[in-house]
Amino acid sequence: MIKVAIIGGTGYTGQELVRILCRHPRAKLEGISARSGAGQNYADIYTSLRGFTGIICEDFGDGELIQRSDVGFAALPHGLSGEIVPEAVNRGKRVIDLGADFRFSDERVYEEWYGAKHPCPAILKRAVYGLPELKRNAIVDAAIVGNPGCYPTCSILALTPLLKEDMLEEGSVIIDAKSGISGEGRSLRLGSHFCECNESVKAYSVAGHRHTPETEEQLSAVAGKKVTVTFTPHLVPMQRGMLVTAYGKLKKGVDAEWLRQLYIGYYQDEYFVRVMKEGVMPTTGQVRGSNFCDISLAVDQRAGRVIVCSVIDNLVKGASGQAVQNMNIIFGFDEKDGLDMPPLYL
Amino acid sequence: MIKVAIIGGTGYTGQELVRILCRHPRAKLEGISARSGAGQNYADIYTSLRGFTGIICEDFGDGELIQRSDVGFAALPHGLSGEIVPEAVNRGKRVIDLGADFRFSDERVYEEWYGAKHPCPAILKRAVYGLPELKRNAIVDAAIVGNPGCYPTCSILALTPLLKEDMLEEGSVIIDAKSGISGEGRSLRLGSHFCECNESVKAYSVAGHRHTPETEEQLSAVAGKKVTVTFTPHLVPMQRGMLVTAYGKLKKGVDAEWLRQLYIGYYQDEYFVRVMKEGVMPTTGQVRGSNFCDISLAVDQRAGRVIVCSVIDNLVKGASGQAVQNMNIIFGFDEKDGLDMPPLYL
Amino acid sequence: MIKVAIIGGTGYTGQELVRILCRHPRAKLEGISARSGAGQNYADIYTSLRGFTGIICEDFGDGELIQRSDVGFAALPHGLSGEIVPEAVNRGKRVIDLGADFRFSDERVYEEWYGAKHPCPAILKRAVYGLPELKRNAIVDAAIVGNPGCYPTCSILALTPLLKEDMLEEGSVIIDAKSGISGEGRSLRLGSHFCECNESVKAYSVAGHRHTPETEEQLSAVAGKKVTVTFTPHLVPMQRGMLVTAYGKLKKGVDAEWLRQLYIGYYQDEYFVRVMKEGVMPTTGQVRGSNFCDISLAVDQRAGRVIVCSVIDNLVKGASGQAVQNMNIIFGFDEKDGLDMPPLYL
Amino acid sequence: MIKVAIIGGTGYTGQELVRILCRHPRAKLEGISARSGAGQNYADIYTSLRGFTGIICEDFGDGELIQRSDVGFAALPHGLSGEIVPEAVNRGKRVIDLGADFRFSDERVYEEWYGAKHPCPAILKRAVYGLPELKRNAIVDAAIVGNPGCYPTCSILALTPLLKEDMLEEGSVIIDAKSGISGEGRSLRLGSHFCECNESVKAYSVAGHRHTPETEEQLSAVAGKKVTVTFTPHLVPMQRGMLVTAYGKLKKGVDAEWLRQLYIGYYQDEYFVRVMKEGVMPTTGQVRGSNFCDISLAVDQRAGRVIVCSVIDNLVKGASGQAVQNMNIIFGFDEKDGLDMPPLYL
Repeated sequence: MIKVAIIGGTGYTGQELVRILCRHPRAKLEGISARSGAGQNYADIYTSLRGFTGIICEDFGDGELIQRSDVGFAALPHGLSGEIVPEAVNRGKRVIDLGADFRFSDERVYEEWYGAKHPCPAILKRAVYGLPELKRNAIVDAAIVGNPGCYPTCSILALTPLLKEDMLEEGSVIIDAKSGISGEGRSLRLGSHFCECNESVKAYSVAGHRHTPETEEQLSAVAGKKVTVTFTPHLVPMQRGMLVTAYGKLKKGVDAEWLRQLYIGYYQDEYFVRVMKEGVMPTTGQVRGSNFCDISLAVDQRAGRVIVCSVIDNLVKGASGQAVQNMNIIFGFDEKDGLDMPPLYL
Repeated sequence: MIKVAIIGGTGYTGQELVRILCRHPRAKLEGISARSGAGQNYADIYTSLRGFTGIICEDFGDGELIQRSDVGFAALPHGLSGEIVPEAVNRGKRVIDLGADFRFSDERVYEEWYGAKHPCPAILKRAVYGLPELKRNAIVDAAIVGNPGCYPTCSILALTPLLKEDMLEEGSVIIDAKSGISGEGRSLRLGSHFCECNESVKAYSVAGHRHTPETEEQLSAVAGKKVTVTFTPHLVPMQRGMLVTAYGKLKKGVDAEWLRQLYIGYYQDEYFVRVMKEGVMPTTGQVRGSNFCDISLAVDQRAGRVIVCSVIDNLVKGASGQAVQNMNIIFGFDEKDGLDMPPLYL
Repeated sequence: MIKVAIIGGTGYTGQELVRILCRHPRAKLEGISARSGAGQNYADIYTSLRGFTGIICEDFGDGELIQRSDVGFAALPHGLSGEIVPEAVNRGKRVIDLGADFRFSDERVYEEWYGAKHPCPAILKRAVYGLPELKRNAIVDAAIVGNPGCYPTCSILALTPLLKEDMLEEGSVIIDAKSGISGEGRSLRLGSHFCECNESVKAYSVAGHRHTPETEEQLSAVAGKKVTVTFTPHLVPMQRGMLVTAYGKLKKGVDAEWLRQLYIGYYQDEYFVRVMKEGVMPTTGQVRGSNFCDISLAVDQRAGRVIVCSVIDNLVKGASGQAVQNMNIIFGFDEKDGLDMPPLYL
Repeated sequence: MIKVAIIGGTGYTGQELVRILCRHPRAKLEGISARSGAGQNYADIYTSLRGFTGIICEDFGDGELIQRSDVGFAALPHGLSGEIVPEAVNRGKRVIDLGADFRFSDERVYEEWYGAKHPCPAILKRAVYGLPELKRNAIVDAAIVGNPGCYPTCSILALTPLLKEDMLEEGSVIIDAKSGISGEGRSLRLGSHFCECNESVKAYSVAGHRHTPETEEQLSAVAGKKVTVTFTPHLVPMQRGMLVTAYGKLKKGVDAEWLRQLYIGYYQDEYFVRVMKEGVMPTTGQVRGSNFCDISLAVDQRAGRVIVCSVIDNLVKGASGQAVQNMNIIFGFDEKDGLDMPPLYL
């Protein structure tokens, strides 16, 4: 059993980490630190976990928790990793960062989109982008895993085979994404107030969301050339779940079934990617609570355009489940360890 | 006071018609017919309307109801207007049809997308597409108004000024729409079962929804040339509301504020279209229960693409409210009569 | 047209007041004051109201707004009326207070349950409890109307005829209430955070909710003797709506239909109370957005117990609609003025 | 590994059985039969389960499936067990029936409340009521387990310690229950149509719900005398979850903490019952997807009344999870096998 630390564990991604890790066959939760809430019984914050953990939250400040662990999950707002990660890495600890600080190879992209200096550019080179379906081999030896954002995870899995095969016209990719409210986190703000978001849908951060450059860097690497996307996220009144509807102009005429076979082939060894049967579009409910990404394809022959629909649970494959998948890869465990639960269909 | 008949009034659009008409200052509900439910007190079907109407549903079969009225709203499944509308028109009654039968100028388009012979092609020429913001003058004298579908209403209002000004590259228009479940109607089907659609979002009828050709015919007329769109509807777990996120490649570089001024100018005399303030994206909640269409614009300068967001209440501006607006135009009433209620923000 | 002021108008009850008053045939909104938000365009806070009001929020501090009006609605947290109400009353303005400060005839009850000194006990005698169905005559001349809480409104209307007729055993009344989340207000707190309350139901303030003594004072007055109730409020994941399920042991054997006739008789002149048909239980949806209270009765013959179900929209009959009803009574308007809209069934 | 059959497995309780059993360490799903849907791939009906089961639904008619299994779960509408259960029992198979047919010791009670002859009264004596916390020892050897209804499970666990200790006045028990919509099943009916039940709450089957006599029989056995309850179920707009708010007059004055200690003591060996910390009321969300029943107690000292709040996931502890718990008991497995997953807090 390896020992696991969660740094900043009282938000929703922290809760999901605890939910998954408390039944992981090869990992033991060593401790949880929290900026607020130190001294509190974790199961008093999340009463659901009563009986599953007796951990008392530790003070955030001192890095002692990660020192007595083998791996640390950092579930912090972006920009805060600087105090924790460099020292941990220096001591040989592995770090899986669920924030944005280690998702870019170039700190200038980070600084442009996040509007702040990178907290520790010196160690950026030691980080690998933690999307196992693309980077499995590099993750094994990475000191730091920059765990992907939810939108990029869902978008990149949706588009990779098409870009790999160079099937899309340049500049034609649009990603229209729909997310449940948990993506907004547990912090109080008017936008997540029940009466403000229930029974309503809206777009936000149109043409300016911070997950855009992360998606573009990875898709460009896949395509072997610069890929620019138009990305529009939306909030939908549900707790969990994300649907990406991605559009691209096809360079040549193919049909949906041809593309489906392409995807089946491409993802044939990927347990957590499920290509749907012909003509069946995925729903976010069908992956609830699980680490799956389900994908369907359609072609608008009149417009020569492909439409890819992909769904994930934004808190699992879009955050904490993928983080555990990365941990499994790093430590040579079965990639499904702790993650092999069927979804809650309803 | 004119006398109004509702033909096929027990579905959700029928209910909305009754809700609006029962307080209309110049129209009186003469009767409601129903295929099922004849003999029932309407306020027993919709208990909310207790005290607002005492109407007993009439038998659907005989067309007597419309004969004793000045205008008939037909809220029927497509293909059923044939029994009712031709006779009514022959007797000089005005008909506002909320189904699909009179939305196309060319019956072949109808037959291709609806997979059936048109029920009464001979009178198609006497029908006008009932989107007041585009067709007000023609509606005045139309024997039949083909009341637009919800998706086309929201999409056409979103895109008209751009196409009028010839600002979009050919073949670049994508309409990604999100609708509440009431758009599926009151008939029982698994897709509208609470546990199947709640806490979930999905695309459906991808690249094949029947509202596509209707949208294209109107947008082509606006643009003065053939416009093809890729249209993807989605179902979102809420009762009412529709958001269209429309994309197009801009022919020349303009910014969002320039476009906003274009829209403000274009819609300056349209009471029911509200262009949002700079930087504010509309939510479907903000038009709940009302006849408004709220619109915002953004530009993705990196991709040279405009993103238009427009919201309506799918049952009001997307169906019954617009039908009453058309009635007001036909009879020379104030277009706001019966429709000037503020939205239910929450 | 009378001039109306809203003191503290940026919360949900304030928004509902504006929504109702902006189409009131005999009242004109003179101004809105706000503790926070002074200087803001009200329609920027609630974008739904764009075009319905151009009011800029005024500073809360000075009482000038109410001086230039005929009546003031105070929509303030309890305890804050002291600065505003006494002076307004002295100047002969009528005040309708939507908070708790004027709901009790005895300031000691207020102080016991609210844990604070009453802000202005000297004027308590000039206040009348604003439940029109019980107090219409007294409201006409009241300087101050203490507008009832949502739970008491729904509970008192449910139980009054039974207590008036002395049909319930002492100590047998239980009120189990279910409220939508808007009852919690617009302030940010974890309990109204979407992911914390959606898809979940819970009881709160069990055996200690502040609406208990208010309900008991009014029911005791109806019964002509002390009535004690056990009251349990619950939060249900919906925006609006409240259902009270009230229980009492019957002193004598009667059936549901007998009781239904009793209620029909008792409420025969009350437009806003609708007794349901035999065997039909009300849903909160059927009164959405309206000022109605719908009531049904059942008898558990095995246990000799009556079960009364009553529903209201907590923001309308439970707050702002009732406040406008009180205003209509005070100024001799038709009690339905501004309130006669049909509910939004869905 | 034992072999398990599901008879009538295409509804929601069937789906939950498959979800739980597909990862059970000691049971293997042998087959699923279905009245409709025979020949269909189960994972096409519930796409969430793709990769977890490859079972093709079998024809319902012939009982061959149960013959080749060790235990059969019958997930049928009440009254249909007659064709299946007697024969299975005769062949020595164990049957866990999720319907109502084996929940009563006296067939006349069944016939009175269900309005039909019992399908197989001859074998009623061989059935045990499957609430492990009350009947564990008897379940071990039962030929048939009558798996409890969701409302009775939640109600009986809430009230047992109080009745065991004879603390409640006769005739004083009221059970006010709130259920998610999945309790209505997957069959299409207007009451589960999204737009009819979303954003609304209602009582139904007031004073006449069929779970009443089941609850009373078990509570009477606990109390050692006849217990009559008034039971009012409500539907709340959420998928899963049930909250029981139970009321009773206390015979003597005790406080909530005293009662809490009583419950802690009574349930100290019950893994699936969690008594909440002082002052914390349970939410249905905190048991989502799990087999837990969480309980809190409050006392209304003014009325001498106890209020017990208990929550379960109606599809798990209220149906399929409890059925698996019963299977574990029958076969001598760890009672937590397959059921030890933490809840989905959100």
